Amino acid sequence: MAWFRNLSRFSTINVSRRHDPFLLSSFNCFSSNNINTNPTIEKPSVDPVQYSGLGPTKPHEKPRVVVLGSGWAGCRLMKGLDPEIYDIVCVSPRNHMVFTPLLASTCVGTLEFRSVAEPIARIQPAISREPGSYFFLSNCTGISADKHMVHCETVTEGEQALDPWSFTVSYDKLVIALGAQPTTFGIRGVKEHAIFLREVHHAQEIRRKLLLNLMLSDVPGISEEEKRRLLHCVVVGGGPTGVEFSGELSDFIMRDVRQRYAHVKDYVHVTLIEANEILSSFDVRLRNYATKQLTKSGVRLVRGTVKDVQDQNIILNDGSEVPYGLLVWSTGVGPSPLIHALDLPKAPGGGRIGVDEWLRVPSVQDIFSIGDCSGFVESTGRQTLPALAQVAEREGKYLAHLLNKIGKAGGGRANSGKDIDFGEPFVYKHLGSMASVGSYKALVDLRQSKETKGISLAGFISWFIWRSAYLTRVVSWRNRIYVAINWATTLVFGRDISRI
Amino acid sequence: MAWFRNLSRFSTINVSRRHDPFLLSSFNCFSSNNINTNPTIEKPSVDPVQYSGLGPTKPHEKPRVVVLGSGWAGCRLMKGLDPEIYDIVCVSPRNHMVFTPLLASTCVGTLEFRSVAEPIARIQPAISREPGSYFFLSNCTGISADKHMVHCETVTEGEQALDPWSFTVSYDKLVIALGAQPTTFGIRGVKEHAIFLREVHHAQEIRRKLLLNLMLSDVPGISEEEKRRLLHCVVVGGGPTGVEFSGELSDFIMRDVRQRYAHVKDYVHVTLIEANEILSSFDVRLRNYATKQLTKSGVRLVRGTVKDVQDQNIILNDGSEVPYGLLVWSTGVGPSPLIHALDLPKAPGGGRIGVDEWLRVPSVQDIFSIGDCSGFVESTGRQTLPALAQVAEREGKYLAHLLNKIGKAGGGRANSGKDIDFGEPFVYKHLGSMASVGSYKALVDLRQSKETKGISLAGFISWFIWRSAYLTRVVSWRNRIYVAINWATTLVFGRDISRI
Repeated sequence: MAWFRNLSRFSTINVSRRHDPFLLSSFNCFSSNNINTNPTIEKPSVDPVQYSGLGPTKPHEKPRVVVLGSGWAGCRLMKGLDPEIYDIVCVSPRNHMVFTPLLASTCVGTLEFRSVAEPIARIQPAISREPGSYFFLSNCTGISADKHMVHCETVTEGEQALDPWSFTVSYDKLVIALGAQPTTFGIRGVKEHAIFLREVHHAQEIRRKLLLNLMLSDVPGISEEEKRRLLHCVVVGGGPTGVEFSGELSDFIMRDVRQRYAHVKDYVHVTLIEANEILSSFDVRLRNYATKQLTKSGVRLVRGTVKDVQDQNIILNDGSEVPYGLLVWSTGVGPSPLIHALDLPKAPGGGRIGVDEWLRVPSVQDIFSIGDCSGFVESTGRQTLPALAQVAEREGKYLAHLLNKIGKAGGGRANSGKDIDFGEPFVYKHLGSMASVGSYKALVDLRQSKETKGISLAGFISWFIWRSAYLTRVVSWRNRIYVAINWATTLVFGRDISRI
Repeated sequence: MAWFRNLSRFSTINVSRRHDPFLLSSFNCFSSNNINTNPTIEKPSVDPVQYSGLGPTKPHEKPRVVVLGSGWAGCRLMKGLDPEIYDIVCVSPRNHMVFTPLLASTCVGTLEFRSVAEPIARIQPAISREPGSYFFLSNCTGISADKHMVHCETVTEGEQALDPWSFTVSYDKLVIALGAQPTTFGIRGVKEHAIFLREVHHAQEIRRKLLLNLMLSDVPGISEEEKRRLLHCVVVGGGPTGVEFSGELSDFIMRDVRQRYAHVKDYVHVTLIEANEILSSFDVRLRNYATKQLTKSGVRLVRGTVKDVQDQNIILNDGSEVPYGLLVWSTGVGPSPLIHALDLPKAPGGGRIGVDEWLRVPSVQDIFSIGDCSGFVESTGRQTLPALAQVAEREGKYLAHLLNKIGKAGGGRANSGKDIDFGEPFVYKHLGSMASVGSYKALVDLRQSKETKGISLAGFISWFIWRSAYLTRVVSWRNRIYVAINWATTLVFGRDISRI
């Protein structure tokens, strides 16, 4: 049996943690709960620690690519990797990829949560079928580059009967695609009181809170002031996520709240707070269109900087207080504590992992990095690319090609493949940006950069392009069908308001 | 504005809690967390308490029917009530009805959670549109029958910034449809370690735990024994819910786990523990068929009684230990502590609220009770009806008719309508029972009772009848479409395994 043959591969390894400068205490790279935790190198009291792992690959086995993370970059990479050449092991606290451009639509029920979540086993079926390929529901806690080994800890959230345990995975090639985390600029109270919008559980939390507030505000005994506060939805950050979420919210209020929460409909308001321009990466004409459209839909746009977040109020820099019932924070992303703490070369400014033109991490063997956690090292003379899904996806696709090429040329093993011609370096070509602004309107900006000229559109046709483009980008046919059906039923029956 | 006119209705009432024998501390009637709490009459230290409420209806307003609960009985009643005659107020900690016969299918992803949840506002739109009708997301904490008033407390779960508050609602007619709660027979550890299967959040918990266990068991460092334990799913209770859930689980294992969790597929097992016969309400021939079918699908049937539940083991009465990774408890239901504590007439045995042939609670004015929380008083000479969806639904339908009739005849107000002819008493006619057993097989028993003769079927045709029957019973067209699409995509793409 393939399974029993495989068991021999799980060897028990003696690892002395004290000698390992990369080993960190457990980070949940995807959780918003501990994003401000300062990384500390853990010194366990018992040493050496005995724990199991997936040992180095043997000559009769395929070389092993270990992928850390399951976002756009990691998933596009796994999709492209040839399972005939490599065994693929993915380590992530999340067994699915989130189709982030449509996440804002799930908060108000335009789309369902599962329609935007793609199981990794559907993206790369080898991971659950091939005897040497695995998905481990775990966090990476450190990397021993010299030993070609990653350190992991299981995620056991929701399973009280089980303590998390540590294990190691040896790699032939390692791809770090751990993404980024929301930035809070050190503002007090953001972590405790605001909700981010990066994961499905964030969208679930927003939906539950929004529906709870709508229902609570209808209960007798609540003051007018409290009712207004509960139903005041504040979005901080005027990037595409913040704007799209505000647009979805206003659609929800204009269509569904008026019908289903008729008693409180006049109390619901949306405010979007941005320190600079909204949608700053877009053409000025599109920005003006978005501003006009959002204002028309009842979204109040406020130019301001948040100083402090309390449980029911936001304090702005000018001292004004903004009472809120729901606070969504989307002011951009930055590297996680784990990325900061890894002893690897860094890109200039910001702490991303540094890579060369072929997305390799210089000065170490067989480590690559893609997506929001990586940036070009200074010697490449290139600028760090923006934290966009299309950048991450393109990098994943490029690297899958490159690794397949290396593997085919016989360089798949650890410390081999140095003489292989890597071919063309990675080049990013921006395809343009899109953002919906609610009321069946969207912006489409097809310029390659802010400086160049090109086509830019706004309005219903853009909205149609926006929907069509994302529908074709959804990874699986299953979800493509569900996204289309969700859109159709929302149009016919309105959004679902059961608070489950 | 209708809204401002309405505000005057929220009057502040002085209520002296001490004089109110019905007022209880807060019970969450739908939560499984506090099902063993003993009800105690709360004596608040500050007295009298000032709180707001919905006062008695005025002559120019419609009479008000207050419905406690949003299960089969309460929702069918609200659907049938004429909003031209009555203002309808629903008090429930849940803003949707759960289509319970299909809940087991959601645990493994055959159906989605939202496909079996029906928002109350979709069942009775008046509740969110009419100025005098409301839905209050609250628990009922007590009833003052003499004052025609119910006491409520808001549900603020998930909203830390807000303390729950109390309020009262005056009624002209009151319908108690608070349902029942799972029975644990006082067995230690059930509440802490087992999951019930009554609400959508139970199904969500089961799905998350099942997927977590499947993934954890694949991580290196886990022992063979622990892997077997994690992947051992135990179901206690061989009624329709337990059997249907076991059937769904075995389908999931045979089709989806083999493909998507190939590494661990041989470790997954399902055990169904029942003290007596499985599906005891069915024909003996059908019972035997179900036993054969489940065994064929790999479900181990164990005749036994649970003595103790620990965090990783069940102890049976014969002393044997059964290690488990997932434990689902479905051994039937009984009245909640609130129902027990209400000072109303009771049905013989079991503590349900007693009703007469017209579903009225005797000895008090204008109170009715339907569904699992009610039973006939001794003087009717009738037996308590089984806790089935079809009983609850039929009672709700009957009572809606009766209340509309009373309202039309001018007896809708509190303490009026005594001289109105109530017409035919409620008669329950059993339409038959159905249960799916997995592998596209089901049982259909169309006998009116265990003693009578009638048609009974088992197999694929029954399964087809089962699916068709439930599809037509789903309340809204939206959900009917979704149930059909979920079934179709499960057939084509398999079940969704993203753990969100």
